[in-house]
Amino acid sequence: MPDSAYPVTTTGRDAALRERARQVIPGGLWGHLNAANLPSGYPQYYARAKGCRLWDVDGREFVDFMSSWGPIVLGHHHPLVEEAARRQAELGDCMNGPGPVLVELAERLVGTIPHADWCLLAKNGTDATTACVTIARAGTGRRKVLVARGSYHGAVPWCSPSIAGVTAEDRAHLIFYDYNDIASVEAAVAKAGDDLAAILVTAFRHDMARALELPDVAFARSLRALCDHAGAALIVDDVRAGFRLDMGGSWETVGVRPDLAAYSKAIANGHPLAAVTGAEWLRQPATKVYTTGSFWCGAVPMAAAVATLDELRRIDGPARMKAMGERLRAGWAAGAARHGVAVRQTGPAQMPLMLFEGDVGFRLGDAFCAAALAAGAYFHPRHNMFLNCAHTESDVDRALQASDAGFAAVARLG
Amino acid sequence: MPDSAYPVTTTGRDAALRERARQVIPGGLWGHLNAANLPSGYPQYYARAKGCRLWDVDGREFVDFMSSWGPIVLGHHHPLVEEAARRQAELGDCMNGPGPVLVELAERLVGTIPHADWCLLAKNGTDATTACVTIARAGTGRRKVLVARGSYHGAVPWCSPSIAGVTAEDRAHLIFYDYNDIASVEAAVAKAGDDLAAILVTAFRHDMARALELPDVAFARSLRALCDHAGAALIVDDVRAGFRLDMGGSWETVGVRPDLAAYSKAIANGHPLAAVTGAEWLRQPATKVYTTGSFWCGAVPMAAAVATLDELRRIDGPARMKAMGERLRAGWAAGAARHGVAVRQTGPAQMPLMLFEGDVGFRLGDAFCAAALAAGAYFHPRHNMFLNCAHTESDVDRALQASDAGFAAVARLG
Repeated sequence: MPDSAYPVTTTGRDAALRERARQVIPGGLWGHLNAANLPSGYPQYYARAKGCRLWDVDGREFVDFMSSWGPIVLGHHHPLVEEAARRQAELGDCMNGPGPVLVELAERLVGTIPHADWCLLAKNGTDATTACVTIARAGTGRRKVLVARGSYHGAVPWCSPSIAGVTAEDRAHLIFYDYNDIASVEAAVAKAGDDLAAILVTAFRHDMARALELPDVAFARSLRALCDHAGAALIVDDVRAGFRLDMGGSWETVGVRPDLAAYSKAIANGHPLAAVTGAEWLRQPATKVYTTGSFWCGAVPMAAAVATLDELRRIDGPARMKAMGERLRAGWAAGAARHGVAVRQTGPAQMPLMLFEGDVGFRLGDAFCAAALAAGAYFHPRHNMFLNCAHTESDVDRALQASDAGFAAVARLG
Repeated sequence: MPDSAYPVTTTGRDAALRERARQVIPGGLWGHLNAANLPSGYPQYYARAKGCRLWDVDGREFVDFMSSWGPIVLGHHHPLVEEAARRQAELGDCMNGPGPVLVELAERLVGTIPHADWCLLAKNGTDATTACVTIARAGTGRRKVLVARGSYHGAVPWCSPSIAGVTAEDRAHLIFYDYNDIASVEAAVAKAGDDLAAILVTAFRHDMARALELPDVAFARSLRALCDHAGAALIVDDVRAGFRLDMGGSWETVGVRPDLAAYSKAIANGHPLAAVTGAEWLRQPATKVYTTGSFWCGAVPMAAAVATLDELRRIDGPARMKAMGERLRAGWAAGAARHGVAVRQTGPAQMPLMLFEGDVGFRLGDAFCAAALAAGAYFHPRHNMFLNCAHTESDVDRALQASDAGFAAVARLG
């Protein structure tokens, strides 16, 4: 790393914090940010973050390509976003009702997202996907929801990847299809009969631990046609990809507009917010569904969202992230070739994944990531990564330099 | 109002914002903060907040007794909380993992709440109640959950007060009992048979639009004994009352300790956070349940929570709110007597409710609240209110002065 001292040993602060956490938090940490699921050497605790850089509690600096698993889209501590948040916080955040910024944000969302006639706000992606399904059921008076096998839609019993504590009834009305497989969707629609409320689909196929798949245009169009024919709602779960691929919703890239969409992650550059957007025919049903939370009218995340969406549009964030993602990808392709390593790169450039051919148990991916991490780049071996708008060519090049250590490690194992 | 000009007419900004919102948000606003559910004259949009005061977008100032329906426990924009949040925001908020403040907060919760051997964090009260139910099912391998008829536990299909979009299966394993009615709980336990996972109970009976009821000690003890006998989990939903009645959890007031408890609202003085605390026997099951969200490791709300809990302990927040709540109550009793109006005051002093005797359709309560609002005090006619630590004797006295207009309005109607 040319311009920063890069300590290769830790001071043991991370290990000490993990040990204390193990006493008071089951398994040390809940959910997707638990570092126990990462190759050894990855930190669990962070001291600070700025732009596309992270510093762990032991003082190690990383060029980061996870962006907090999505929320950071303009870069950490973006001055415009933080200034908007600070100004709103001075006035008020969590009050007996919203601030005027709610109307500003709702108008922005409806004005930016072509399918949207209205919106609701929430806190978690799961709040938004759950509200979509519930509104679709309320609007159709039907129960069955089609879900792609293996897709992630949240962390509550109806959709959680774990079945611990889940009852059969929690998923009684789900029918499964395979992503990008029209025949499987048609079979699922037939199975639903006259009880089809919705087809739920992620913006692209981004299941963990397998190659990513963009939606085929024919597949997307067939979902639209099947919903239209059945009078069911097409729901795009854009929680993970929203505002990274297209400001109008990720399925603008395939020319198909949903009836409902769920957003969260990137909407406010790390401030806690989620949104549902919907079509006119579901407006009235949306008023009947009771969906709320203690902090859902909080004005600070809304102010952050307005600033984030405005800046993303101003700089054409999706195009910028795409360009940097393509630079990373090209560099990886060249690096892999240089080291005689076979890789498979998938997904949109803004949310890339690199898998190693024949990599049973992710032995090679883990070795690549561990070596790159030790050289200052934070990648993920099994989950799609996330570019953000703070990544510059120089950051990507620095990460590619670190990747070289990763490819060398894989070549040694191969 | 002695020291602030109190405009009695509005500038129409609130009405204009509502009209714009109606275009882009179903029904104008989702959930519990929708002012359409309040007597006429209540504002929907707020310009700012400080301590126990709120200013609406038309410049009207209110002494507030809803405290954002619970989250504001130290007062809006509390300097210690906001300074802690600002310092953490300068370092980092939403990163690839938590900051050290997570461990600090988790240790605080486990150290403060006697029943807690561990904790999890989340964003919404509903996240916490849902996780409690799921963990109880995972820990017992059973499905039935006992819930008090009419109790509010969140806004998703398994517990929402609306049935729009809800399927029968969402609630297939709930069995209902009546709050404070031991025989009804025993009957529900018998109905659950060997499939009893948990008894879920709110800290006190705080159902909307009826008198509040504190838990009888005998009732609380019987729930504990029934769970112990069945090997089921006792879950206290302390989302609404937690940290207002007792820093160790609200059922410390009746000497009964749950196996799981859900917290949110007051935990971070308005910053979005929720928590589950649990007993040792549920630690391992909690690791199996997948519960997570994009912002759940956000360090800023955690820093706000540490500051909030420390300050609440330092000043004995529950005792302070109780004293001011009792002052309000005594003043209301005197005011009602003076005007020859019969009232019924219920609930803990920190979360009071005043109903008018024989008040069919809340005609009298609405008239009281509308007149008090016009005189500068923000009350609620049907939902428990919330004191916060910013209320001084002078604030309460000012609100009582405004209440006088309310009692006069009721006397005119009576």
